[in-house]
Amino acid sequence: MRHIRYTFSHSSTDYYFAGGISNLKDIVDLQKTIFITDENIFNCYQKKFSNWDTLVIPSGEQYKVQATADRMIAQLLEKKADRKTTLIGIGGGVITDITGYVASIFMRGIRFGFIPTTLLAMVDASIGGKNGIDVGVFKNMVGIIRQPSFILHDLTFLNTLPVLEWQNGFAEIIKHASIKDAVLFKQLEESSIKKYQVRKKSLGELIERNVMLKSKLVKLDEFETGDRKLLNFGHTLGHALENLYKLSHGHAVSIGMSVAGLISEQRTGFKDSGRLIALLDKYGLPTAFEFDSKKVFEILKMDKKKAGNSMQYVLLNKIGKAVIKEIPIDNLEKWIESIASAR
Amino acid sequence: MRHIRYTFSHSSTDYYFAGGISNLKDIVDLQKTIFITDENIFNCYQKKFSNWDTLVIPSGEQYKVQATADRMIAQLLEKKADRKTTLIGIGGGVITDITGYVASIFMRGIRFGFIPTTLLAMVDASIGGKNGIDVGVFKNMVGIIRQPSFILHDLTFLNTLPVLEWQNGFAEIIKHASIKDAVLFKQLEESSIKKYQVRKKSLGELIERNVMLKSKLVKLDEFETGDRKLLNFGHTLGHALENLYKLSHGHAVSIGMSVAGLISEQRTGFKDSGRLIALLDKYGLPTAFEFDSKKVFEILKMDKKKAGNSMQYVLLNKIGKAVIKEIPIDNLEKWIESIASAR
Repeated sequence: MRHIRYTFSHSSTDYYFAGGISNLKDIVDLQKTIFITDENIFNCYQKKFSNWDTLVIPSGEQYKVQATADRMIAQLLEKKADRKTTLIGIGGGVITDITGYVASIFMRGIRFGFIPTTLLAMVDASIGGKNGIDVGVFKNMVGIIRQPSFILHDLTFLNTLPVLEWQNGFAEIIKHASIKDAVLFKQLEESSIKKYQVRKKSLGELIERNVMLKSKLVKLDEFETGDRKLLNFGHTLGHALENLYKLSHGHAVSIGMSVAGLISEQRTGFKDSGRLIALLDKYGLPTAFEFDSKKVFEILKMDKKKAGNSMQYVLLNKIGKAVIKEIPIDNLEKWIESIASAR
Repeated sequence: MRHIRYTFSHSSTDYYFAGGISNLKDIVDLQKTIFITDENIFNCYQKKFSNWDTLVIPSGEQYKVQATADRMIAQLLEKKADRKTTLIGIGGGVITDITGYVASIFMRGIRFGFIPTTLLAMVDASIGGKNGIDVGVFKNMVGIIRQPSFILHDLTFLNTLPVLEWQNGFAEIIKHASIKDAVLFKQLEESSIKKYQVRKKSLGELIERNVMLKSKLVKLDEFETGDRKLLNFGHTLGHALENLYKLSHGHAVSIGMSVAGLISEQRTGFKDSGRLIALLDKYGLPTAFEFDSKKVFEILKMDKKKAGNSMQYVLLNKIGKAVIKEIPIDNLEKWIESIASAR
């Protein structure tokens, strides 16, 4: 098990790569730890949970809401959790987001860690301390930024991961490559989901490379006043589509990145949107989608990144080099409509 | 209007003393500000709110709960609040607590300020960044620590303050004096609520002295790992009584301080519990109360300050000098029972 520590502005996070739940006994006190997981994970991996006090919530993004957080808090009180309790979220992004949120507000904040079980959660959702819940169609509208004490990767969870979840993970990996890492982009072009599934060593290296890439961006700009915003590439439109059409996160972001690539061609002279779309396509990700642009814009206008009548939109200068452009909402609406109707 | 800035670990708070709502125009953007207040304040002071977008919630501690926060968030979304919006809580501790909480979690945190309208909120609740809500009988069980951008005192609000609220404020002022300021304690012994109500200058000085005393303690220990805990004097038992018997905060804390004074006589050799009780009595505060110690202990055992089988309890060495003692829960239970039955 490899151990790396990242120090953020007010706290540090320990990363443990290629470990197992059994390694937790060296990290936390069994008696003062509560696992948070969802029904799917719990039913699939009951043995892994046998020694641990576990709180199970229903599976699915539709449960990443305050009502679930309320029930979790009631259960923590029943379990007599106190300020010395550690919560560990074991699951995908829904579990890590809501575990971090509940741990951050319960008794004004208790310790928490994550064991991400999906590729997406390993390379993205578990990293960076953005915790939260959805409010209606608005994703992550409520939450706070607080770093987990530790993140432990147990790659055996990936053995049962459905193909859709591999695609979701690769959407974020392709995002990382697009905004910051041209070498990784090329490597992805030369590989495929199948190849990574077979070559465990390459997969482990790929995961670590992405964890490091995101962690560095977060470390430099924890509260998202600058470069961390680049990680929103594909996410503004993506989030609006995701909750409105119940798309998977990766699929929604993939459509968002495709559109952002095309907008980039008009705004920054970006020339490689064909390459970007081809790569997304290679990893089984959708690059076009028919949507009701009126409804989507109603949601976009409520996006957290909007301020006044314009929005900070992440575009690409070239592969591996993203930029943030302030775009008036009206222009954005016209461009997205023309892109949607041209395809 | 006097202006003082306190810098905390990650942010600073501007204090404006003896100002008015009209001064806000120099501090915030009218177009991007939403007032949060309760029905009582709104009905009493409609004129003050006439130029401001205001969100009104029902009055009373029973509304300091997640369901109210949920409704506030829905209304903020309807009002198209975004990350540039400032929330200003105008009211007593319930309003400042829930405004700070909602502002801290909405879009992962937006700017907020307070205009405390009660003596208690001016000298205590608005200061220190502890925001939150109650969960069932558990006070402030959910929340986070985040400092307001500013606090503005408009003393005209005190003109309509009922006597119970004066008593509540003086409970915290007597607490401050007991734990840190023997000179203030003596000054309080020589004065009375009536005298302070008449002598506006003394009242203003008293408020500033208490704001400074609490702010210094918070500044030195924002996340309550040390001296800030002294501010919990009287609050452990106080909180348990408050929600169980629907006592006012100051009355509950006064009973808690009286009991803590008597425990101090046994544990630290404190000699002045008679003086403490006499002072509380002089300010109209209760110093004894019949309670069901079984029920109270069920709540005490869930207090945030409990860890394992003992609890950090704030006691007095002498007037103006508090200490924290680790007390086993069982001992505490026996002492409190014997004090309750002896009176």
